[in-house]
Amino acid sequence: MRMYDLITKKKQGEELSSQEIAFMVEGYTKGEIPDYQMSAMCMAICFKGMSHRETADLTQCMAQSGAQVDLSPLGGLTVDKHSTGGVGDKTTLVAEPMAAACGLTVAKMSGRGLGFTGGTIDKLESIPGFRTDLSQQEFFNVVKQAGIAVVGQSADLAPADKKMYALRDVTATVDSIPLIASSIMSKKLAAGASVIELDVKCGSGAFMQDRDQAELLAKTMVEIGCRNGRDTSAWITNMDQPLGYAIGNSIEVNEAIETLQGNGPEDLKELCVCLCAGAFSTAKNIPLDVARERALQVLNDGSALQKFRQMVAAQGGDLEWVDHPEKREKAAVCLEVKAPADGYITHMDTAAVGVASMLTGAGRETKESTIDPLAGILLIKKTGDFAAAGETIAKVYASDTAKAQAGGNKLLSAISWGDKPAPHIPLILGHITAE
Amino acid sequence: MRMYDLITKKKQGEELSSQEIAFMVEGYTKGEIPDYQMSAMCMAICFKGMSHRETADLTQCMAQSGAQVDLSPLGGLTVDKHSTGGVGDKTTLVAEPMAAACGLTVAKMSGRGLGFTGGTIDKLESIPGFRTDLSQQEFFNVVKQAGIAVVGQSADLAPADKKMYALRDVTATVDSIPLIASSIMSKKLAAGASVIELDVKCGSGAFMQDRDQAELLAKTMVEIGCRNGRDTSAWITNMDQPLGYAIGNSIEVNEAIETLQGNGPEDLKELCVCLCAGAFSTAKNIPLDVARERALQVLNDGSALQKFRQMVAAQGGDLEWVDHPEKREKAAVCLEVKAPADGYITHMDTAAVGVASMLTGAGRETKESTIDPLAGILLIKKTGDFAAAGETIAKVYASDTAKAQAGGNKLLSAISWGDKPAPHIPLILGHITAE
Repeated sequence: MRMYDLITKKKQGEELSSQEIAFMVEGYTKGEIPDYQMSAMCMAICFKGMSHRETADLTQCMAQSGAQVDLSPLGGLTVDKHSTGGVGDKTTLVAEPMAAACGLTVAKMSGRGLGFTGGTIDKLESIPGFRTDLSQQEFFNVVKQAGIAVVGQSADLAPADKKMYALRDVTATVDSIPLIASSIMSKKLAAGASVIELDVKCGSGAFMQDRDQAELLAKTMVEIGCRNGRDTSAWITNMDQPLGYAIGNSIEVNEAIETLQGNGPEDLKELCVCLCAGAFSTAKNIPLDVARERALQVLNDGSALQKFRQMVAAQGGDLEWVDHPEKREKAAVCLEVKAPADGYITHMDTAAVGVASMLTGAGRETKESTIDPLAGILLIKKTGDFAAAGETIAKVYASDTAKAQAGGNKLLSAISWGDKPAPHIPLILGHITAE
Repeated sequence: MRMYDLITKKKQGEELSSQEIAFMVEGYTKGEIPDYQMSAMCMAICFKGMSHRETADLTQCMAQSGAQVDLSPLGGLTVDKHSTGGVGDKTTLVAEPMAAACGLTVAKMSGRGLGFTGGTIDKLESIPGFRTDLSQQEFFNVVKQAGIAVVGQSADLAPADKKMYALRDVTATVDSIPLIASSIMSKKLAAGASVIELDVKCGSGAFMQDRDQAELLAKTMVEIGCRNGRDTSAWITNMDQPLGYAIGNSIEVNEAIETLQGNGPEDLKELCVCLCAGAFSTAKNIPLDVARERALQVLNDGSALQKFRQMVAAQGGDLEWVDHPEKREKAAVCLEVKAPADGYITHMDTAAVGVASMLTGAGRETKESTIDPLAGILLIKKTGDFAAAGETIAKVYASDTAKAQAGGNKLLSAISWGDKPAPHIPLILGHITAE
């Protein structure tokens, strides 16, 4: 078998066999297939696509290229959740404790953020004492004890994906649905959960700005999961404005706790209910509306909050911090951003809001940047809201005035104003389950 | 400027600016742009193509990446000729002496063959004593003395093309018209002639099997030449059977000499007249039929043969060998290939005939193979001819019986037979001049 022939085949729009895909992924991971052949292949895939079968095979091979976590010692139905990324997305902190409260086992590996706001791991680390670098044994012990643990993703998951992604990143071959879907799902497969719940976002703050593309990505990922024996379903959700009001780390954890306490923003609560219900419905093979009732119940009766508290305690975090917001450390500077004139917020360039948050110190500009856990933006007004001239529309938290002002200016430039409210875009745009 | 952005641009089907193409070619030649980015770019070009302007720019940049021969000290109109390759193509040995006899200056650099039969240089080296590795000064002296010289192509012509071609060859990105055209023409531009005459072949023995593709390639190359200030025109010719009857090295030179003596095969003579007339017409800006008269005249009056003899003598070749075929060394083995039954030859898989010739020792299987100048195939019958069962249809020359039989068997397998002659395909399919 020769990589040259596989490139030719894909270039002509033909389907690669399972054996050919295995040859390609193994050869590339071992360094036997050079970068220049793989980049030509990736470009050909950008133009010619891959069938669901090819994509599922590619994902499986990438998952098998490194460590594969075996969650079977934990027993029960293990659930994982993945979001394609957005601004103010703290759903893992809410939906996963809800899933655990529903009786599912949550043994989750999560990533750090690059750019925009931090990832789930960065957010959790804003809780004093919270450890995300558990050994496998510690990780499993926490799950057994609390029913839920969230740790940093180990570096040796899907090394083939890591190598391919680094290549795609410098050869303008990132934006291919089968390559995006297989990259995400290879790590999910390797992480071992039997139930995978996906949140594919679209809109100005999402990787997929276009709804049709988001739907195609969601369908592709659900196909990959199901073809690899995982119960997978996906929500397509609106990321045309930040989720909730808090964008940062400590302030996002705060908003997540408020949501678990029953006092969160409506959009965040609704999405978390959907994600938990979707996973529960898929895992138990029960109707979605029944699963939804259960999800609402664990939120309303406080059992999801208890799961969150158990996890924090088991991972070394400070429960005093969780339970007493008034005792938490505050950012040195808080700048209020004011409405420039009377008007309705008609749109927020949500990617730009993410950049604004990063400028406050809440995200990483480069891999080496450190995150300021206290920095971020707390919106007061969102799309559809009216603000009078001079009214405070957001609070910007930072360690110094310059950062706060940079974030505040960027935030203002991201907001469009109008005389009338813009048409409302629903939060939940679709639900994809196995066919 | 970043190569990443240029790949993205091309992937989206946009036109690259002259500056962007220069950045890309210079960066790649210097090693600042890595192979994996260039291969992604080449694949994007395979899908999205290049405009004539982009292709001309690319060619110019590749030509400028290394040595550029200055033929101006030679004075007069310097002419070069290029064929896209075929089987039994010895036109350079006839058409270039004709052009010289017409008063054009022929200072030609030519390549060795890879696969199939040898290149022009290999063929000329079958003349005892003939030197093709002249210094620039010797080269110029021969041209001044004889009006014509044909030497081996120096390694430092268009190094950017050399590097890009090697990459395309292993990444399945060879078959793109703008990339093929720029690769060929970059060396022509660097070789310095002011008049470029092209012979683009199509059919079963050609790189371009399809006539429309051959026409597109011809038009693209003529555009490149003209946009770079060279008087360029092209013929599209039939390579659905070998040109002439001889396929090899020494035996092709013999057929070329016979043609210069007025005893050559009709198809070879006609093509050489076209090529010479095309170059003369373009160079002198005179009507093609007038140029054709002149081409026929130099062939018929023996002045083209004299130019060939002058070149051979000036480059150290043995004129006794040229003038006395009976004194030439013969191959050790001559095998006669017989018709298996009564019938018409309806088609020859000409690429397979080329392989047959290679198997006799007349071509190179790998870069390291040495060529047997005496080996090859002399066809007796060609497409359209009738042969009775057992009649000799070809003679196969080789250094031993095994090679002769391998060549003979391959030749037989390349021939299709029928009860009636197949429809005739004309030799000359088109003529492309600047618009």
